[in-house]
Amino acid sequence: MNLDLRERALKFHKDNHGKIALKCKVPVRNKEDLTLAYTPGVAEPCMEIYKDYDCIYDYTSKGNWVAVVTNGTAVLGLGNIGAGAGLPVMEGKSVLFKSFAGVDAFPICLDTDDPKEIIEIVKTMEPTFGGINLEDIKAPQCFEIEEGLKKVCNIPVFHDDQHGTAVVSTSCLINGLKIVNKTFKKIKVVINGAGAAGTAISKLLLKMGVEDLILCDSKGAIFKGRNIGMNKYKDEMAEISNKNLVKGNLKDALKGADVFIGVSTANCVTRDMIKSMNRDPIVMAMANPNPEILPKEAMEGGAKIVCTGRSDYPNQVNNVLAFPGIFRGALDIRASEINDEMKIAAAYAIADIVDENELRPEFVIPQAFDLRIAPKVASAVARSAIETGVSRKRDVTPEMVEKHTKDLLK
Amino acid sequence: MNLDLRERALKFHKDNHGKIALKCKVPVRNKEDLTLAYTPGVAEPCMEIYKDYDCIYDYTSKGNWVAVVTNGTAVLGLGNIGAGAGLPVMEGKSVLFKSFAGVDAFPICLDTDDPKEIIEIVKTMEPTFGGINLEDIKAPQCFEIEEGLKKVCNIPVFHDDQHGTAVVSTSCLINGLKIVNKTFKKIKVVINGAGAAGTAISKLLLKMGVEDLILCDSKGAIFKGRNIGMNKYKDEMAEISNKNLVKGNLKDALKGADVFIGVSTANCVTRDMIKSMNRDPIVMAMANPNPEILPKEAMEGGAKIVCTGRSDYPNQVNNVLAFPGIFRGALDIRASEINDEMKIAAAYAIADIVDENELRPEFVIPQAFDLRIAPKVASAVARSAIETGVSRKRDVTPEMVEKHTKDLLK
Repeated sequence: MNLDLRERALKFHKDNHGKIALKCKVPVRNKEDLTLAYTPGVAEPCMEIYKDYDCIYDYTSKGNWVAVVTNGTAVLGLGNIGAGAGLPVMEGKSVLFKSFAGVDAFPICLDTDDPKEIIEIVKTMEPTFGGINLEDIKAPQCFEIEEGLKKVCNIPVFHDDQHGTAVVSTSCLINGLKIVNKTFKKIKVVINGAGAAGTAISKLLLKMGVEDLILCDSKGAIFKGRNIGMNKYKDEMAEISNKNLVKGNLKDALKGADVFIGVSTANCVTRDMIKSMNRDPIVMAMANPNPEILPKEAMEGGAKIVCTGRSDYPNQVNNVLAFPGIFRGALDIRASEINDEMKIAAAYAIADIVDENELRPEFVIPQAFDLRIAPKVASAVARSAIETGVSRKRDVTPEMVEKHTKDLLK
Repeated sequence: MNLDLRERALKFHKDNHGKIALKCKVPVRNKEDLTLAYTPGVAEPCMEIYKDYDCIYDYTSKGNWVAVVTNGTAVLGLGNIGAGAGLPVMEGKSVLFKSFAGVDAFPICLDTDDPKEIIEIVKTMEPTFGGINLEDIKAPQCFEIEEGLKKVCNIPVFHDDQHGTAVVSTSCLINGLKIVNKTFKKIKVVINGAGAAGTAISKLLLKMGVEDLILCDSKGAIFKGRNIGMNKYKDEMAEISNKNLVKGNLKDALKGADVFIGVSTANCVTRDMIKSMNRDPIVMAMANPNPEILPKEAMEGGAKIVCTGRSDYPNQVNNVLAFPGIFRGALDIRASEINDEMKIAAAYAIADIVDENELRPEFVIPQAFDLRIAPKVASAVARSAIETGVSRKRDVTPEMVEKHTKDLLK
């Protein structure tokens, strides 16, 4: 990072004492206001909720609040810097939720590494929130936490580092495959990095119909029967992927692949490795800030399409394309969960923003500041929630969700 | 409650879907904003906090956020209605914190009755917050929770039902005793209700110099040696109060008393009981919505000054006079705790708002909407924090706190 950006970023945060504050939706200017917002009037909505818990969505702001929960064990690429040091990222996430889809999000930074404790705490504080966004929690604990919370919570639980990344990556491939004229069913995909993102991308691509998929970690390809560096989540991946039992390192796995997806470390892919891939390879090198291979080198190796996680190259895979609209849709329809169908609907909605006649190798994914995105994603997610039976607000249509999102962005 | 108020209160809450939302303090309109508020710029404040945890107050909004924590076991006068049904009150509290002193407050409704779990949860989520306001948690669990949190937290912990009520009650007496020309040292005080409020009022009045104080519960006067209906908190009260070992019921205790303070139930005090008190008795009948004795009856019994918890009678004992300014002062000075000296400073600051020439039996305590209150309370609390050595921000003066509070209220 250049010194100038460092200074600007510190000043930006210090000048404002952080990024988030409370906004009162109602005024308290006189005795009448106080009588309604607080005692004695407030007793009335309390008793309504006591009698019928679902009324909590009518009389409180629960339905629009998302908890951004972290324990600071995998903050950006900085590693385990602790819950407090992760707070600037969580506040930033709150700002993005609000700015891109009108979702009120609040940072919950939990000073513990114990997955069971995190599950218990988040479950216990469920009454205040309409959804849970897990953030920057290291793998494999993040899987246990998400699974555990999904079992006990009555509100959607979504680990953005997993599923947000998976959704946007899938969007890139939906459009990228059109350009290279291939289908999900026929491609060979190699994913490097078996953490939160790599695992979730793998699973979503399998759902998309990919049949030949190899997930690699620092020990190379994960295959059924591998003994070193495994855990129960990698065992599961070995069961469902790498049907040809490919062994060896990333270089070996990449031979003949159609798609490389990196969610790993800088500079682990060479020009020659790209050359060894199938015709018109798609290279998604998303390590941040330094990708697995620089776009220029990937192109020199024959890549047809290159995506990165950076805003200064074309085709930035940015989660902000997905999570605001996904939660907007889930909250508006009061979804009980965010299932794979809803994620896939979001991926198609994002991909669809790029017109057929705009589509080219340098433009497979829309820009973050395209204000058409969140309303389309939200309505697609809502439609999918209705179709898969996880909507709990039957009087809301996808069209209403789209309009609501647009109104919030005005 | 009349039907009209009920309807208005429900409509008020439903129309707005609750009362609180997120406010972004910074814009995210373009790539540059995103670069500073989120990746890659946000990594810089994260690393500063990682290197020096105290920087969290510079680079995040932690220092202005207060968690309003409840488990819904004693919501208003409604009893144990549960964490979710308490949410409208907690959102209301957030609105009051913001409207009266610019404090950002967020409701944390915990679905558990276990004091140890509440302590553990709140401690674990400490990174996000600058202070903890406990609310509507039943006694005696509230005492255990507050004590436990004070031991483990590095930020101020304040149970408003205890200490906010104690501060405002003390303000009333500071001014009331001037009118009847008595002193704290010489008066006999009888308090009915040995829950959160009654216990805290007793302790603060003992600190104010009261020597003859009897605390009563539903079994009558609490005295050293009483065997029925005791717990460790009542045992402690028996040790430090009722030095004359008065036994019997409230009626017996009230004979010859100068001050009655009710934080108990409707209509438990009669005109004749007021008549049995010392000359010019002060009657604080704060049960809500129906006081221990109606003001008219108390006056007929000879009361010189009557206070209630209601806004439709003179002298409303309203916690909103205290808690916003107390937290404003504590946050601005980064106090490690809110100690008795700070509470007493707040009580005097509130009492001082009423000019000597305005002071009369029907006006011993200022109105809630007097905008002079919070700045005065905040600066008095800050001064006391400095004097008692609990301030951790040495470059802030009480005058700066007063100005900051005034600026926030503009």
